[in-house]
Amino acid sequence: MPTPAMLTDMYEYTMVDAALRDGTAHRACVFEVFTRHLPSGRRYGVVAGLGRILEYVRDFRPSAEDLAFLRDNGIVSRETIAWLENFRFSGTIRAYREGEMFFANSPVLQVEGTFAECTLLETVILSVLNFDCAIASAASRITSAAGSRPCADMGGRRAHEEAAIAASRSAIVGGFMSTANLAAAQRYGIPCIGTAAHAFTLVHDSERDAFESQIHALGVGTTLLTDTYNVEEAIRTAVEVAGPQLGGIRIDSGDLASMAQKARHQLDALGATGTKITVTNDLDEYAIAALATAPVDSYGVGTRLVTGSGHPTTSMVYKLVEREGSDGQMHPVSKKSFGKSTDGWRKRGLRAYEYGLAQGELVLAGTAEAVAAWDDTAYGETKDLSITAIDHGDIDESLTTRDALFAARDYHVQALQELPVNALSLSDGEPAIPTEVITLN
Amino acid sequence: MPTPAMLTDMYEYTMVDAALRDGTAHRACVFEVFTRHLPSGRRYGVVAGLGRILEYVRDFRPSAEDLAFLRDNGIVSRETIAWLENFRFSGTIRAYREGEMFFANSPVLQVEGTFAECTLLETVILSVLNFDCAIASAASRITSAAGSRPCADMGGRRAHEEAAIAASRSAIVGGFMSTANLAAAQRYGIPCIGTAAHAFTLVHDSERDAFESQIHALGVGTTLLTDTYNVEEAIRTAVEVAGPQLGGIRIDSGDLASMAQKARHQLDALGATGTKITVTNDLDEYAIAALATAPVDSYGVGTRLVTGSGHPTTSMVYKLVEREGSDGQMHPVSKKSFGKSTDGWRKRGLRAYEYGLAQGELVLAGTAEAVAAWDDTAYGETKDLSITAIDHGDIDESLTTRDALFAARDYHVQALQELPVNALSLSDGEPAIPTEVITLN
Repeated sequence: MPTPAMLTDMYEYTMVDAALRDGTAHRACVFEVFTRHLPSGRRYGVVAGLGRILEYVRDFRPSAEDLAFLRDNGIVSRETIAWLENFRFSGTIRAYREGEMFFANSPVLQVEGTFAECTLLETVILSVLNFDCAIASAASRITSAAGSRPCADMGGRRAHEEAAIAASRSAIVGGFMSTANLAAAQRYGIPCIGTAAHAFTLVHDSERDAFESQIHALGVGTTLLTDTYNVEEAIRTAVEVAGPQLGGIRIDSGDLASMAQKARHQLDALGATGTKITVTNDLDEYAIAALATAPVDSYGVGTRLVTGSGHPTTSMVYKLVEREGSDGQMHPVSKKSFGKSTDGWRKRGLRAYEYGLAQGELVLAGTAEAVAAWDDTAYGETKDLSITAIDHGDIDESLTTRDALFAARDYHVQALQELPVNALSLSDGEPAIPTEVITLN
Repeated sequence: MPTPAMLTDMYEYTMVDAALRDGTAHRACVFEVFTRHLPSGRRYGVVAGLGRILEYVRDFRPSAEDLAFLRDNGIVSRETIAWLENFRFSGTIRAYREGEMFFANSPVLQVEGTFAECTLLETVILSVLNFDCAIASAASRITSAAGSRPCADMGGRRAHEEAAIAASRSAIVGGFMSTANLAAAQRYGIPCIGTAAHAFTLVHDSERDAFESQIHALGVGTTLLTDTYNVEEAIRTAVEVAGPQLGGIRIDSGDLASMAQKARHQLDALGATGTKITVTNDLDEYAIAALATAPVDSYGVGTRLVTGSGHPTTSMVYKLVEREGSDGQMHPVSKKSFGKSTDGWRKRGLRAYEYGLAQGELVLAGTAEAVAAWDDTAYGETKDLSITAIDHGDIDESLTTRDALFAARDYHVQALQELPVNALSLSDGEPAIPTEVITLN
């Protein structure tokens, strides 16, 4: 596997190399991650990935092999190699919590440090946020549609094999309860679930043999896959084999609403009133919403979860907003590219509330002193949306724990309840709350 | 990092556990990977990922830590742990070459072995193929649209950080020439390219300072980013600083066609007739096609490449098609799920040609003997589309080399030329050639 220091675009290193030669590498800088717009029609986005970023920042140091690669390919100079040998990020990162909502221009993550150290982190920070936020945002819509019925991530096979693990993690942030992915269970302590594949039924001489085998191995609490041949027959066989204590059945094809209805009637008639019904098969938030009145107990969601339900990436960018000049003072900077101009100065994101309900996102722009000293009385209750994840190189390790992941889900559920009710609408619309950018200087 | 043996869904292990108890784990099986349909409107798909799969199969053995996890969480029995300790895939894998076209029902990859060993590989094989084929398929359309102009992958920041590396690799299969991603360059020997970010200009006191610094570090052959403030001024400064030997400029915003036109005129007027123009900014095959007459020398493609240009995954499935019965004979098997039924028997994929032009895809289904002995005379020239990648556990390591990756690109270019010309149309349409499934038994 590559080290985190190689999970980056080459130009980060060549820029650092040039900047080390001319001295700007050591200028104090503030970079910010934000998106210029939510995906079309989406009402909010969900932050995920901060815990993963912190691990990468902690481990971001080129190995001897990496340094040899950079040297042998003439990517950086000998002097830069020497500088990289001792690299360790010593700056500060503030970020929106995992599980927090974001909107266009929300300062989701802010990196403060020298130009060189901030630049090296650009690509990997964007990779993590752009993927993880896309999945968490989709997961949030899916779990909203599912209401109190639990959703399980079954998408690993439809995503890059490592992305699958990050997707499982982000799904939890967005409200999922479990995953089918073993690596995600192993790494993050996510509850792992599973039933059986059609191949398991097919390799046996009969469906009955397959069900008997699964129950022998996993007990009657297991979930049997009932749509390999004929669902009605399969359910009859399942209850014959397992008894009415059968844990669950899974249906993976056909008209899920009517099949679930028939299955529930049949199970109840057979006395298996406690047997749960899980449905799977290209579910997304719309399909799940359509199943709201069907007697379904849980959803397994695959493709549409791990591809962000139509938006497989987030358009997060990493922009220099403030930097030290030759006068030693901090100055706002911004590019003027048509349609992609940026605002200078560091930002501070707050959410304004009235009676506990979010009214809007406030993005303050200004000097460190101005944004810190801002008088919020005109906006009623406000909440600072960022936390300090790394303070002058000192990582808040509590943000990388398993507990932090499940706490992010709790935080998300709470934050979602604080949004206006139209945030939960699945249809295309405006952002759930307006964002106001206030320039203080 | 997790070991390859954990890059899988839990149910693969619980199925193996149950099958080891009842004996079906040792039944000879044939599993096949295929898609039921191409993404809507797409005319062909491109196979990629085989080299990565072979490395995973080679390394697929649970570590001591993995075994402890499986045991401590009660996922498999003690007997299965003992069996897993010595796991090594001893079966056979045949697959379409990387760079080959595929269509609905093409038997892209075939795994032959015991039920247990084939089952354990399901998830990771699907993860790799579903992602890598999606990217290679998009890359092929993008490079077709670009014609003789080279395309560079700049999408790493818009994909999961490990998926980014696989995307760079798959882009090469689909005709790309280079990547911005260092890890991909390091791992696969892909030529690495880069210019500079807007932040590099902004951290300097002036654009001139930034250009001078970059040229000092990287030489006049470098590519300068010219749209931080005003493109016309930037180009003037760039040629003043670098001289007419300046390697290239990059434009990353605005109306790229008209900006490239103006930039070309200006560069030529300044004597920089050899300076190349690279454009970037959310390019995809459609945007590139629209730039065909603009004086652009190369394209940098990001988001739309790594998200499969609208189709971020492929709907590849892994299905049991043939297995040994209690009589010791091989039998075809298939599920009957509504809308998702499968065909039994192993398949053999061939392409039929006339005057060197592909006429159709033939998918033979039958016993090993029948498909091997099939008389193809009625179909004119035919080509077997699969190669043997693993023969009874023996991996063809030549398929995992760097040379194999670039050979796949050559193969792809050739295979694309053999398709009817409508294959190159970017508009939605029918598959470029029809597929005929012929059942021989």
